[in-house]
Amino acid sequence: MSKYWNKKINDAEPYVAGEQPKAGVKIIKLNTNENPYAPSPKVAEALAQFDISELRLYPNTDGGELVQAIADREGVKPTQVFCGNGSDEVLALCFQAFFEKEGNTNLPVLTPEFSYSFYPVYESFYDIRAKKIPLREDFRLDASDYAGVPNCGIAIANPNAPTSRAISLEDIAFICKSNPDSVVIIDEAYAYFAEPYETAVSLLPEFPNLCVVRTTSKSYSLAGLRIGYAIASEELIEGLKRARDSFNSYPTDRLAQKIAAVAIRDEEYHKKCRERLIATRKYTEDALRALGFTMPESAANFVFAKPPAGVPAGLLYKNLREKGILVRYFDKDVLRDYLRITIGTDEEMRALIEACTEEIKNVQNS
Amino acid sequence: MSKYWNKKINDAEPYVAGEQPKAGVKIIKLNTNENPYAPSPKVAEALAQFDISELRLYPNTDGGELVQAIADREGVKPTQVFCGNGSDEVLALCFQAFFEKEGNTNLPVLTPEFSYSFYPVYESFYDIRAKKIPLREDFRLDASDYAGVPNCGIAIANPNAPTSRAISLEDIAFICKSNPDSVVIIDEAYAYFAEPYETAVSLLPEFPNLCVVRTTSKSYSLAGLRIGYAIASEELIEGLKRARDSFNSYPTDRLAQKIAAVAIRDEEYHKKCRERLIATRKYTEDALRALGFTMPESAANFVFAKPPAGVPAGLLYKNLREKGILVRYFDKDVLRDYLRITIGTDEEMRALIEACTEEIKNVQNS
Repeated sequence: MSKYWNKKINDAEPYVAGEQPKAGVKIIKLNTNENPYAPSPKVAEALAQFDISELRLYPNTDGGELVQAIADREGVKPTQVFCGNGSDEVLALCFQAFFEKEGNTNLPVLTPEFSYSFYPVYESFYDIRAKKIPLREDFRLDASDYAGVPNCGIAIANPNAPTSRAISLEDIAFICKSNPDSVVIIDEAYAYFAEPYETAVSLLPEFPNLCVVRTTSKSYSLAGLRIGYAIASEELIEGLKRARDSFNSYPTDRLAQKIAAVAIRDEEYHKKCRERLIATRKYTEDALRALGFTMPESAANFVFAKPPAGVPAGLLYKNLREKGILVRYFDKDVLRDYLRITIGTDEEMRALIEACTEEIKNVQNS
Repeated sequence: MSKYWNKKINDAEPYVAGEQPKAGVKIIKLNTNENPYAPSPKVAEALAQFDISELRLYPNTDGGELVQAIADREGVKPTQVFCGNGSDEVLALCFQAFFEKEGNTNLPVLTPEFSYSFYPVYESFYDIRAKKIPLREDFRLDASDYAGVPNCGIAIANPNAPTSRAISLEDIAFICKSNPDSVVIIDEAYAYFAEPYETAVSLLPEFPNLCVVRTTSKSYSLAGLRIGYAIASEELIEGLKRARDSFNSYPTDRLAQKIAAVAIRDEEYHKKCRERLIATRKYTEDALRALGFTMPESAANFVFAKPPAGVPAGLLYKNLREKGILVRYFDKDVLRDYLRITIGTDEEMRALIEACTEEIKNVQNS
């Protein structure tokens, strides 16, 4: 509380990001869904060739060569791409641009009951009414639950976080078709790790109300660079640019634009990283299930796993932490029975499995 | 207009940044107050040594070594520093955190009649009532005009843009003291170019309601990097962090943090650039005055100059543009009698003076 903060800030319940250990501390970090592999080696070449005198000039507001790289990669026009300072910024601008503020229509934005924890923060901060749609058994999203519910917009993470489950393109098409007057945001932060890979970008020619949001953080190993983007109809992209230019006209910097563009163009490298990660995920799922964990089939670079009976997730989280292994724990509702575990390298996951084996033995013997 | 945009976006009047010419086009660019000199050579060294595998991890949310570099430079605690994605983002978050939304107190935020054109954009976008305080003769800001006026906050650019004039620290102290319950934002984007250099940071021990906003764009030649910051009491900085974490938890990326920190620590280089720029400004002011221009004494890296009688500023702007020289023209109120001209290199300013000489002759002979 402060007399200098306004009511909104005094009331705010800000997002709490996963813990970032101090530099130099030796830890196995499986708590914020970072990619375990370094970015494309072409990034290092681009850095070495970068002419620093460029930095004295403002960047291209729309993202310049980065927008072109994304458009080429996704098979859309550059005018269908919006770049921002991480997908969190892009999502925040979507909420500000497309969803009605309280008092205009009084309709809520629909989100899954359990999903990315920044959505309710945006809703509250931008005074948007919210309605959570329950998930079905084992965190399954049923598309029919999003038809016939009056709303001012819809936001769905696909694959969903922290549940790791994905819905099909048919489901997304059904939701877009059932809500022709609402913008449907499909947040594909983790889509690159689904097997088989598919993206709602392929639905854009049919649905002017569809807005696909992506990030270079996970799929391109660039969480430290802060580049996210939206791909949508030109009409929606223009709305996002209006929101941006009411806030900060230059959200992406010259170096980040260049590096992200180079990374996005290096498909071969990222395909290899993706294949390794999917293989490690399979190993992790099998090993955890063998220990008695249960979990939905993951389409993401993390698993959402419930420890065997008698082993409280909160206790396991704490004990893993003491062993130098950080995973994410949400002490809330049914989520508190689960751990969200990022897929790291094979070596890191073997260490995790070993630590879990030991902890489960300890708990069961005590 | 779009049915998918909400009312706010349909109604928005976004900020319009100065024109950015396409890469490769040969132009003398004096329209967006960029520094004519390259950033510190130490930036190139830092880039060459940067380990790209760092980029796979999220950055430090508060700015890490960058916050420490700013704190060291300004003689404050790291907890008194807030870093954002350019000072535009920092200013936008200040408006969102400290100024009341319409309906809470119904008090306006005070800004000078002519000032940075993003302020009214924020006011309108965040539903904050606004009151413009007229400037006195020759764009002079009189501090007494900011006493006894009920308000929810105050934002003043010092030096002011586009007028180039500065107010004294005594004036700022008077305004802070006269408004103890309001946050007073002093936007020092151009402060580094005032002669002598002084900063409201020195007033912070006295005023918990003072928030100084700065940028690396102009003074450190890093407009392309997007690093701005606020320096204030811990209470205000905490409010800004709450606003940030309701929007985007990681506004500054790992590379930008490192580069800006290295630049800020290289005081010697920037002192030299500053001295050259101030000398070039003196030359420009003298030469323009000799041609019959009038202008306030500039404390910034631009001049705000009124062409001699009979030479309309709008026409001169257009004709300079045709000659490949871009300056900034605001076609609005009394501002339309002036040109805002960024101080470039000596060579660029000689070309500007030559072009102006020619244009004035043409107009006077026609």
